[in-house]
Amino acid sequence: MELLNVELGTRSYPILIEAGLLGRPDLFRQHLPAQDVLVVSNTTVAPLYLPALRTSLGSRRVVEVILPDGEAHKTLANSARVVDVLVANRFGRDCALLALGGGVVGDLAGFAAACYQRGVAFVQVPTTLLAQVDSAVGGKTGVNHPGGKNLIGAFHQPTLVVSDTHTLATLPPRELRAGLAEVIKYALICDAALFDWLEAHLDELLAGEPGALAHVIKRSCEIKAAIVGRDEREHGERALLNLGHSFGHAAESATAYRQWLHGEAVAAGLVMAAAMSVECGLLDAPASLRVQRLIERAGLPTRIAAVSPQAALEHMRIDKKVLGGRLRLILLRRIGEALVSADYPPAALTHTLAGHFG
Amino acid sequence: MELLNVELGTRSYPILIEAGLLGRPDLFRQHLPAQDVLVVSNTTVAPLYLPALRTSLGSRRVVEVILPDGEAHKTLANSARVVDVLVANRFGRDCALLALGGGVVGDLAGFAAACYQRGVAFVQVPTTLLAQVDSAVGGKTGVNHPGGKNLIGAFHQPTLVVSDTHTLATLPPRELRAGLAEVIKYALICDAALFDWLEAHLDELLAGEPGALAHVIKRSCEIKAAIVGRDEREHGERALLNLGHSFGHAAESATAYRQWLHGEAVAAGLVMAAAMSVECGLLDAPASLRVQRLIERAGLPTRIAAVSPQAALEHMRIDKKVLGGRLRLILLRRIGEALVSADYPPAALTHTLAGHFG
Repeated sequence: MELLNVELGTRSYPILIEAGLLGRPDLFRQHLPAQDVLVVSNTTVAPLYLPALRTSLGSRRVVEVILPDGEAHKTLANSARVVDVLVANRFGRDCALLALGGGVVGDLAGFAAACYQRGVAFVQVPTTLLAQVDSAVGGKTGVNHPGGKNLIGAFHQPTLVVSDTHTLATLPPRELRAGLAEVIKYALICDAALFDWLEAHLDELLAGEPGALAHVIKRSCEIKAAIVGRDEREHGERALLNLGHSFGHAAESATAYRQWLHGEAVAAGLVMAAAMSVECGLLDAPASLRVQRLIERAGLPTRIAAVSPQAALEHMRIDKKVLGGRLRLILLRRIGEALVSADYPPAALTHTLAGHFG
Repeated sequence: MELLNVELGTRSYPILIEAGLLGRPDLFRQHLPAQDVLVVSNTTVAPLYLPALRTSLGSRRVVEVILPDGEAHKTLANSARVVDVLVANRFGRDCALLALGGGVVGDLAGFAAACYQRGVAFVQVPTTLLAQVDSAVGGKTGVNHPGGKNLIGAFHQPTLVVSDTHTLATLPPRELRAGLAEVIKYALICDAALFDWLEAHLDELLAGEPGALAHVIKRSCEIKAAIVGRDEREHGERALLNLGHSFGHAAESATAYRQWLHGEAVAAGLVMAAAMSVECGLLDAPASLRVQRLIERAGLPTRIAAVSPQAALEHMRIDKKVLGGRLRLILLRRIGEALVSADYPPAALTHTLAGHFG
């Protein structure tokens, strides 16, 4: 079993990675003291993995909230529904919420855990590649607002992350590819060797080869844990993890979170960030082409035809990274090195949007 | 001007106390960098003080959300309404929320500030005695749930607290008395000399004598700032500030927050905590009588006739201080010394409820 640690002083927590962890009651005995557990899952994941999880939770009192599947359901209303169930069952401050599912379930359950009684324990059991490599680690929780993605949220670290890589066997290929977008993101930000590795081993990943998947999950969690440990609340370096996300969020928001998976939108956003970095004279064109090629090979979108450049810009302006009216973007200096910039020619953004939206 | 500091490392902030601060643009220039400010107030306070505040905010972009007055409006729905206005006006991460009003406005606006984009700046401009001595200081934010008070919330420290004691001149006598309940609470927890002072000067306070009010506001903020500085997230000592609140919350919750002001419910709760401390053999009866007398003299309730003891117990059980199914209560060892206890005879609680509810 891989065991990584996110180092945050008294709020440090372990990430456990291995096939079959859902069937390991000993791990939950060791790492989850709560006796009252509210499991939040969705209609796709719950039938597959909730029975095994319940068995591993042993004699605890377990209550379930099963949400419809999809980003469109990551709403304040559903988060309030989770709280209603906590109150109706008289769960106290010593309870835990457990998210069994992908990023939507994790973000929403985490936000409910952050707000219930001003914060209760929270366990992530991610079952998608995207959640295992990214959203389950780092404490960002939240729900969407009709005006923008994750506009309502909290920093609330989990107390435990259990990544059972066996759950990826049932993951639809489209979701597997979406998760790879975040892995490519880590490589672009700070690990050129990982990018090379991805170019060499993409086919194994797309085929769901367990060893290849375990490698990228571990490496992604290592990168994210290190960055979060240094900058939990995104005052600086952590913002780099948003590479591709301003563009991607605009695509998601403009299509009401219904057309694209988060990872798909991020994939197109990575292509845009690379293209814009070339426009700004930061990145050389061949590197940008490598990014686009890898994303194409992964079966991920490189442009968003259904959203106009104007609509995309409008949605980017409410993005959380607007500071003093100026949109900060994450750009690339080379593959393996990203930077935050608010100092780019406005035309570079306009061109990039015009070239990749509509 | 009194200037106290809440010491919380990078999140330390000043509390400014003096008559006339609302009319001091220099203070806001010095302490409030945000250029986009959303003011949350209510229909009672806004007409009285919002014009002066707007003038002091100078050329900033100021947007208002004016809520109906009263605890019944401290809801998740109203908090979501504040977020809707932030999104509609495209406020970015560098905006600030400013609460102009009492505890309801402060708690709700603070919760919206905590959740919007995972946390934006927040300024408290408390206009009630209760908010100036208690709720505006310390970073507890939240809204009520039909199942219990403040069940949805966050710890989110303000960046500035501006207590203009001049606003107390328009405070209804009932609200002034309600604020005194929290002052009496501080005295009971850790300042026997303040309790003596209150017994000697209660009439001046009830008459709204500015010097007497300034004294108790400053002393209350000193006590609270010190405790919050040592235990921001209520892992220990801060729980003492809940003296009287488990009983009080039950009274409020059982009457749907419509019958009693928070401070009135707390006043009755203080009497109950003292009575129960006597039942437990912790406090001597004459001290409990002094508590009851002072609260009676302040024109505050010492019992809650409209709620049955059974209903009160039911509402206490969902209280946030339930841990492992056992209700922890704050009790008194003497006037000026409180303790947290889950180790009391169940009959002591039953007797206390039977004696003060129904």
